[in-house]
Amino acid sequence: MSAPSETPPASPDVLEIRRGGVVETSLRVSLESTADLRRVYTPGVAVACQAIQANPERAYDYTHIGNRVAIVTNGTAILGLGDIGPLAGLPVMEGKAAIFRRFSGLSAEPVLIDAKDAKTVIDVVDRIHLGFGAIQLEDIAAPACFEVETELERRLGKPVLHDDQWGTATVVLAGLINSLKRVGRKPEETRAAILGSGASGIAIARTLVGYGVGDVVLVDRAGAIFRGRTDHMTTVKRELADVTNKDNVKGSLADVLKGRNLFVGVSVANQVSMDMVRSMAKDPIVFALANPVSEITIEEATEAGAAVALDGRAMNNALAYPGLFRGALDVRATKFTPGMRLAASHAVASAARGEELLPDMFDLAMHQNVARAVGEAWQAHLAQGR
Amino acid sequence: MSAPSETPPASPDVLEIRRGGVVETSLRVSLESTADLRRVYTPGVAVACQAIQANPERAYDYTHIGNRVAIVTNGTAILGLGDIGPLAGLPVMEGKAAIFRRFSGLSAEPVLIDAKDAKTVIDVVDRIHLGFGAIQLEDIAAPACFEVETELERRLGKPVLHDDQWGTATVVLAGLINSLKRVGRKPEETRAAILGSGASGIAIARTLVGYGVGDVVLVDRAGAIFRGRTDHMTTVKRELADVTNKDNVKGSLADVLKGRNLFVGVSVANQVSMDMVRSMAKDPIVFALANPVSEITIEEATEAGAAVALDGRAMNNALAYPGLFRGALDVRATKFTPGMRLAASHAVASAARGEELLPDMFDLAMHQNVARAVGEAWQAHLAQGR
Repeated sequence: MSAPSETPPASPDVLEIRRGGVVETSLRVSLESTADLRRVYTPGVAVACQAIQANPERAYDYTHIGNRVAIVTNGTAILGLGDIGPLAGLPVMEGKAAIFRRFSGLSAEPVLIDAKDAKTVIDVVDRIHLGFGAIQLEDIAAPACFEVETELERRLGKPVLHDDQWGTATVVLAGLINSLKRVGRKPEETRAAILGSGASGIAIARTLVGYGVGDVVLVDRAGAIFRGRTDHMTTVKRELADVTNKDNVKGSLADVLKGRNLFVGVSVANQVSMDMVRSMAKDPIVFALANPVSEITIEEATEAGAAVALDGRAMNNALAYPGLFRGALDVRATKFTPGMRLAASHAVASAARGEELLPDMFDLAMHQNVARAVGEAWQAHLAQGR
Repeated sequence: MSAPSETPPASPDVLEIRRGGVVETSLRVSLESTADLRRVYTPGVAVACQAIQANPERAYDYTHIGNRVAIVTNGTAILGLGDIGPLAGLPVMEGKAAIFRRFSGLSAEPVLIDAKDAKTVIDVVDRIHLGFGAIQLEDIAAPACFEVETELERRLGKPVLHDDQWGTATVVLAGLINSLKRVGRKPEETRAAILGSGASGIAIARTLVGYGVGDVVLVDRAGAIFRGRTDHMTTVKRELADVTNKDNVKGSLADVLKGRNLFVGVSVANQVSMDMVRSMAKDPIVFALANPVSEITIEEATEAGAAVALDGRAMNNALAYPGLFRGALDVRATKFTPGMRLAASHAVASAARGEELLPDMFDLAMHQNVARAVGEAWQAHLAQGR
């Protein structure tokens, strides 16, 4: 019904398959007769309303809430496209919803928030969260994303996960687990440089520290993040500086990389030269994850001596988040703990076949195993009385 | 996974059919291979994002937005249950979503707003409306509902409909059109008393005035609403007083009903006696719509002389709203006009079979006709240059 427009900017079939969107609402019950209608809607529905009014927990029995995830974005950091706004980001949210449905059976609904500041995003989600069992934060720019996640987790008492942080970090750790096995190295023998201090770089740094990696140095446009640095710092970077960079090294990525045996790039194209890889310690692991063009190609990294080289094509967040949410909702966890994410990383890692570092997305048993491991980790967390 | 609980308060099968909810999210595309994944998600999805960034109207092509309706409630007036809160109202919203899906093919998603005041509801919907093509307001108590609807329609530039007002009023008018035909009476010969000045009573009054009914008097707990009344008044009632009650009559429902030939009750049980019906003009039309027990039974009203008597069981909002939204979205209307609602009433009325006053819900052609009529009414509205 819309007016004719300019030619689409690229491959029409990529557009054509999404005509009208990639997800929709469908029925879980029969609605073919007046008798059905009177059960599904009034007067029958009143019984469910009253049951929930008497005990709000019954909403998990008599509504879809235990399967319903909000995919919340404000459109400030969409894919590699940046701050294109929430409406232009909707195709990504619908794609995520399709992935949720396919790999975890969950119903995920895009929630587009028209606000850039953390406070408004938090307040709006706080007002609408009742209809959802869990909240996935998506493509919200740093540093607002950190405050949004922390504050919502505190307020809502239900699972909240910023996928750009923890989805990415969980899969990176899965890849690292298998890489370390391949090169026969322990976490504590690993000395990492991470390039990029956005949402994913910060979460990867935290995750590697939590995994017991020997040393982690985060590098951004102002060079190494160290205790006492004053330019381009934020609260989150200052917190990180306290638990990373044991030797408090300074300087550029080239300076930091010398003698290290792990590089993780979540920045932009072509930041790493072959000479920089050659300057690393023996048998380095190189994860060059920038999209769509990586920091260094797999071929160049390998030629320069990398024992393991991976780019962003294999490192798909969707290996982790369907199972993370399925698992958390199945056990009615009230939040995601580091232990749940670690369990997910191990479950992802263990599903990789043969020489692969990561499993195939279409390995449905893997997603189920992630969900089970996440649920068990929550039970263990509870058993520890915390 | 939840703990064992007390026995449900009523008929377990009504509860059992809703276990896990009555609607879910499903796929509209194939997602069976890595190639599918690369089209549905990254990198293919970026093409759609960029198309929408360049022209926001493209969201209606490359996302589900043109089929996605938010069912917004704050839970302050759920069915006949009252202010039970949004979570306890969720089964109703899911039931509405099931009806939307079945009768219009639209994807409707419950949006539970945790706020009672109009301002907060308005602000929250204003922040999240981008992901939806239209907004259905549901079970929001008067008088907040009036401000919420008016202000959202003004701000959003997309269709907003408070179903308790206009869904009800549209179906009541459809029933009235067929009733007047049966008794051979014209709108201008009709003198109406409406009992109940909540959302539906107000909207029915406005709708009957718009249809050219000769006189309309709205009656509430303080009796007839007249110009100059000071107790239990609101802005909306004052506006109504200016365009109803031509003779400025005062008094109780019994006083008002004398000599009138239409009663519409949207109040509570047992408000109308047989003597009150006998006091009406010849061949009165009696719509006693209170739920679950009507103002007077059909049997009593008929015995007391009603030429037409109808209760709430036949008067289902769902006869109107699926087609109203489908029609508005199909033509990308920016609001609902009185003409669109009138067109819907005529389309509903004309689908009634034989002696029936209203059609069957499962008459799918009726819903399609409503949508078409609503769309044509919008086009006519545009053609009139307004």
